Amino acid sequence: MRLRDFGVTPGDLPTGTQNSITDVPGVRVGHVTLIEGEGPLVVGQGPVRTGVTAIVPHAGNLYREKVSAAVSTFNGFGKATGFEQIRERGVIETPIVLTNTLNIWRAADAVASYMLRANPDIGITTGTLSPVVGECNDGFLNDLQGRHVGAEHVWQAIETASGDPVAEGCVGAGTGTACYQFKGGIGSASRRIPAHDFTVGALVQTNMGSRAELRVLGAPIGQQLESELLPQPGAGSLMIVLATDAPLSSRQLARLARRAWLGVGRTGATGHDMSGDFAIAFSTARRTPHVPSADLDQRIVLHENRPIIDQLFQAVVEAVEEAILNALTAATTMTGRDGNTLHALPHDVLARWLRQYGLTE
Amino acid sequence: MRLRDFGVTPGDLPTGTQNSITDVPGVRVGHVTLIEGEGPLVVGQGPVRTGVTAIVPHAGNLYREKVSAAVSTFNGFGKATGFEQIRERGVIETPIVLTNTLNIWRAADAVASYMLRANPDIGITTGTLSPVVGECNDGFLNDLQGRHVGAEHVWQAIETASGDPVAEGCVGAGTGTACYQFKGGIGSASRRIPAHDFTVGALVQTNMGSRAELRVLGAPIGQQLESELLPQPGAGSLMIVLATDAPLSSRQLARLARRAWLGVGRTGATGHDMSGDFAIAFSTARRTPHVPSADLDQRIVLHENRPIIDQLFQAVVEAVEEAILNALTAATTMTGRDGNTLHALPHDVLARWLRQYGLTE
Amino acid sequence: MRLRDFGVTPGDLPTGTQNSITDVPGVRVGHVTLIEGEGPLVVGQGPVRTGVTAIVPHAGNLYREKVSAAVSTFNGFGKATGFEQIRERGVIETPIVLTNTLNIWRAADAVASYMLRANPDIGITTGTLSPVVGECNDGFLNDLQGRHVGAEHVWQAIETASGDPVAEGCVGAGTGTACYQFKGGIGSASRRIPAHDFTVGALVQTNMGSRAELRVLGAPIGQQLESELLPQPGAGSLMIVLATDAPLSSRQLARLARRAWLGVGRTGATGHDMSGDFAIAFSTARRTPHVPSADLDQRIVLHENRPIIDQLFQAVVEAVEEAILNALTAATTMTGRDGNTLHALPHDVLARWLRQYGLTE
Amino acid sequence: MRLRDFGVTPGDLPTGTQNSITDVPGVRVGHVTLIEGEGPLVVGQGPVRTGVTAIVPHAGNLYREKVSAAVSTFNGFGKATGFEQIRERGVIETPIVLTNTLNIWRAADAVASYMLRANPDIGITTGTLSPVVGECNDGFLNDLQGRHVGAEHVWQAIETASGDPVAEGCVGAGTGTACYQFKGGIGSASRRIPAHDFTVGALVQTNMGSRAELRVLGAPIGQQLESELLPQPGAGSLMIVLATDAPLSSRQLARLARRAWLGVGRTGATGHDMSGDFAIAFSTARRTPHVPSADLDQRIVLHENRPIIDQLFQAVVEAVEEAILNALTAATTMTGRDGNTLHALPHDVLARWLRQYGLTE
Repeated sequence: MRLRDFGVTPGDLPTGTQNSITDVPGVRVGHVTLIEGEGPLVVGQGPVRTGVTAIVPHAGNLYREKVSAAVSTFNGFGKATGFEQIRERGVIETPIVLTNTLNIWRAADAVASYMLRANPDIGITTGTLSPVVGECNDGFLNDLQGRHVGAEHVWQAIETASGDPVAEGCVGAGTGTACYQFKGGIGSASRRIPAHDFTVGALVQTNMGSRAELRVLGAPIGQQLESELLPQPGAGSLMIVLATDAPLSSRQLARLARRAWLGVGRTGATGHDMSGDFAIAFSTARRTPHVPSADLDQRIVLHENRPIIDQLFQAVVEAVEEAILNALTAATTMTGRDGNTLHALPHDVLARWLRQYGLTE
Repeated sequence: MRLRDFGVTPGDLPTGTQNSITDVPGVRVGHVTLIEGEGPLVVGQGPVRTGVTAIVPHAGNLYREKVSAAVSTFNGFGKATGFEQIRERGVIETPIVLTNTLNIWRAADAVASYMLRANPDIGITTGTLSPVVGECNDGFLNDLQGRHVGAEHVWQAIETASGDPVAEGCVGAGTGTACYQFKGGIGSASRRIPAHDFTVGALVQTNMGSRAELRVLGAPIGQQLESELLPQPGAGSLMIVLATDAPLSSRQLARLARRAWLGVGRTGATGHDMSGDFAIAFSTARRTPHVPSADLDQRIVLHENRPIIDQLFQAVVEAVEEAILNALTAATTMTGRDGNTLHALPHDVLARWLRQYGLTE
Repeated sequence: MRLRDFGVTPGDLPTGTQNSITDVPGVRVGHVTLIEGEGPLVVGQGPVRTGVTAIVPHAGNLYREKVSAAVSTFNGFGKATGFEQIRERGVIETPIVLTNTLNIWRAADAVASYMLRANPDIGITTGTLSPVVGECNDGFLNDLQGRHVGAEHVWQAIETASGDPVAEGCVGAGTGTACYQFKGGIGSASRRIPAHDFTVGALVQTNMGSRAELRVLGAPIGQQLESELLPQPGAGSLMIVLATDAPLSSRQLARLARRAWLGVGRTGATGHDMSGDFAIAFSTARRTPHVPSADLDQRIVLHENRPIIDQLFQAVVEAVEEAILNALTAATTMTGRDGNTLHALPHDVLARWLRQYGLTE
Repeated sequence: MRLRDFGVTPGDLPTGTQNSITDVPGVRVGHVTLIEGEGPLVVGQGPVRTGVTAIVPHAGNLYREKVSAAVSTFNGFGKATGFEQIRERGVIETPIVLTNTLNIWRAADAVASYMLRANPDIGITTGTLSPVVGECNDGFLNDLQGRHVGAEHVWQAIETASGDPVAEGCVGAGTGTACYQFKGGIGSASRRIPAHDFTVGALVQTNMGSRAELRVLGAPIGQQLESELLPQPGAGSLMIVLATDAPLSSRQLARLARRAWLGVGRTGATGHDMSGDFAIAFSTARRTPHVPSADLDQRIVLHENRPIIDQLFQAVVEAVEEAILNALTAATTMTGRDGNTLHALPHDVLARWLRQYGLTE
């Protein structure tokens, strides 16, 4: 189930064909979902409720053809890798990988290994590389310390990435994560700017928020369900990946990435202390060769002080809001280690309150 | 009229006595409202629809006893002064003044003059000073180029500042400004953290947003009123001032300031290209002497990784959301230069839609 | 006297024709020097030892054709205006003006007035504007509180700006400022990158440092002169302006701006607490129209991961080092308010120690 | 050999007993040096010329008692981990580890494993953790792709860390790295502020710079040796770790960290494009409990606007300058993969030129 199946539509802009980050031409997403065992936690054995999600900006050699990129850190309480280099050079040169918190360094190492295969000159006759990996803490359900995501899972997520609609909810890096203390996970959405047929896509790995904060299109639905057992005491994090085919510079992409927080605000979050909230934005239309053949080159640029830039900002806000809500509606109840359970947002309750708030008939 | 007069309550935390930034003990606010003339614009003569709002952190000599402070720039398309020094030294040493865009430097100069009176040693036997002034563009109604705010108006706003509930709507720096293409202006709200009886107050000078974006407690009320004549083509800005008596460091205040954007997001904004959106946060409980008497000192600090910090974050989000909506409900229709008119959000329409969306009975 | 007149040459790269920021084609500099009165300080009357320096990036309408730009704040203890907007939009749209600390807001207001003359639509039918003004505290010699720089001085500095070699030492904004507790002021230098005939120019307004720190091409000459009476107790600041005709993005210009601090380091500074140290960099080769005629456009870009970028970095370091030393060698002893005196670095002593340290024959 | 053995003394402040970062009470450093094989590169086998260096801020449980910290990124072209969280929370909660570029993620994972042993509740009943790891590219000598640093080497470096004078040159993370195209590696130095008996220590892992840039106490010694065969085409990076026992906040530590670049500037670097240059600063005197027992606490703070802060800044600049030069003088010629050789700076040549430049007798 996606949010739109409930008859509500966040925002005004049209979506891409799939209402998914993969609507941005060339962008592919792959998931590896790891679910194994149940019962009491035995560190190193399980239960396992985790996974990896890879966002691949284009089908070429990303190291040889880097994409323009930027980041926005709303709450730096997280371990995301590669941000310093994105800020300095304005590009991403690997797939973007999402996983669980304690697996982030092994996943980054696996991304490095993956890139070395296609670029065996790295560190020998050319420079080094900077994997971009983000994470959420799925330790309420998952044997986090076990670090069950292996290099082969990272590679598989990259290699099986496709342009199909992104699977949502309890898949990939969202297998074990929450969303406003309900079960959440992976969500995606997209918006189209008709003027130039630009697309903006968002993919989120949700884990943040407390139940009372949740707003669905403004309706304070979380408050209606507060009385039910709260499953998870601690706050989680939020990783946001934004893709576009508009030819934006890294400075402009940073402006887009910052708008993500307005979309998050619409869903009610207050930015908990221990929630690592990060947004990564890239443009497939701006590529930088690893080894440029000349000092000077030409590029298409998009001017600000024109309506197009505000439409791109609006697209980000709407796509992020909807992606978060899609993660919520797609997720199903999941029980993990020690019998810990994250309950799905009950669909009938959601439908009832959307009606009650006049958002549907 | 304030938002609560419509029977709705944003968020969960209790407010301070006045639901105003002046609930933070010692914080005072003063307005000078300049309304003069009508008809066609004659630069330098009017019509005048502008003013100045001063937020005074405490009653002492602010230069001698600086308050801890931080800033968050969401959209740097604005002229706010003093931010570099706040980031470096983590303090504010003057009242915070808000006014119109082209008056910002004269207002900063007037703040300097004001401070020199009480601190005649500045620039002679001691250091210099750094006024903090923000602005919105009220040029749709106001003779902006005329720069009608004089030093005496700035001084008067500071000198008449009081701890009373903040006047809202078309007053002070909000006299000529908009809010989601309705008439807006100054708004304020506060939240209390019962645990330690800490207060967080917000004051906003609104000018941002397009009508279709406006959400009142989530209800997309702006969309219902889109068909009416849009009065203002360009986007405006948003200045947010946050005060607290919790003993926060400048790093922690920066965390609070960033949460303001989640509150803004709740009201629907998408962060327009030409909207200068800034938040300034200060703590009255952390003071730094201009001339310390010793190298080392003691201070009370507030620990993170405890619920108190999340309550402070929540207080910011809720107070900012409500302050923006208060600016909107308090404002009245205003006609300015060339007959340009900013219409108030019709109260009956607001009430009707709040009912329709199930937010009131 | 310039540093090279002593027979020493900082760095390896060739200079432009004039070894001045005005070697960057189209860049012009104007000074207004205000020296009046002597004896005891009477606030508002004098003595006056101050001025204004304007750096004009090109001869066209800067508001209509903005130049790509970036800033680097090393020590934010200063009042520079316009930085937030440069970071957000990556452009400068006015001349860059330098003056004394307490005059900065009046100077910014004067820049606004100047721009309004050529762009009478600002704030009426188009957006607002963001003057870029920097400052140093010349209050040891100058009646700082008197704010003797008027709007007409700012306009005159802009209007008389020329492409001639920049006057150095006790002129313009450097009239009353220091340099390592000697008399300093304005200095400039340039470097050329032969490959593409790119030029990098630096202009500095010095006021920073203590005598013991001064290094001239590494020789600790300041230490040799420490025993002489130290004229100025407090630390000052440092404003650096960098210009280039290489087609750099704002992100790349930020990289250049940061390199300025390596050049400063070569002259011995340790970055005093109360020294506001800022660098502003712009490229005359990247222009952004205020009102673009289309969403998309083409631009020449310069690739990184090629030697050209390192040459540009080297040019910045060398030009900044030499500009600071030029400010020092060009300045002459100046007595100001209350008989306070800033002594010039004695040329014979400098020559002697350069010889002693094997830097000259 | 250390720089002082040549009879020269950078700066004015006294050093700690050992002129080493371990002069800061409680700070310990451990190295593991990996040298194995010679001849042609066989990826995965060697030759190995690498290692790991651990800086341990105090002897307690760092996760339970975090130290105040800050970072300064001069050139973000590097893979350092943990920076986002340091900026957000102002603390470091693990040892700081340095290693080679492609080993950084495995080293971070190893640090996590190390911390989990002493804190088995991480990710189960308490939060997560954020290792701080930096790197330089030693691939000119070392089989970088082989990633020969294993978890056991990281643990050994931490466990064998001692308060003895830091071994310098070709040890630990500096085993295979360069310095101005000579052999470099690890260097350290310290300065003491007599007033309060505060110590500032620096440890560097050098790899940056081209030969022509090198300045030893200002003397352009690199230029004298340029004609010799240049061994390494690409530029490397620079990791700087600063420790102090002065009770500084994270904001103040960020100010210290930025001053490191002035010390770097004194040695001649121009900040190459592909040089990842980062500084990390921490204070052993400011500890934050992982689980605070109360919301409010008391802390000693150090006031700015007093000479003490400038002395701390000076200490940073001097210690960084000397640490870099110590890395250079301590290193010995090293041959690695494919017979690639990094030559030590010839001591006799250095001594000769120091004399020639009047720096020694």
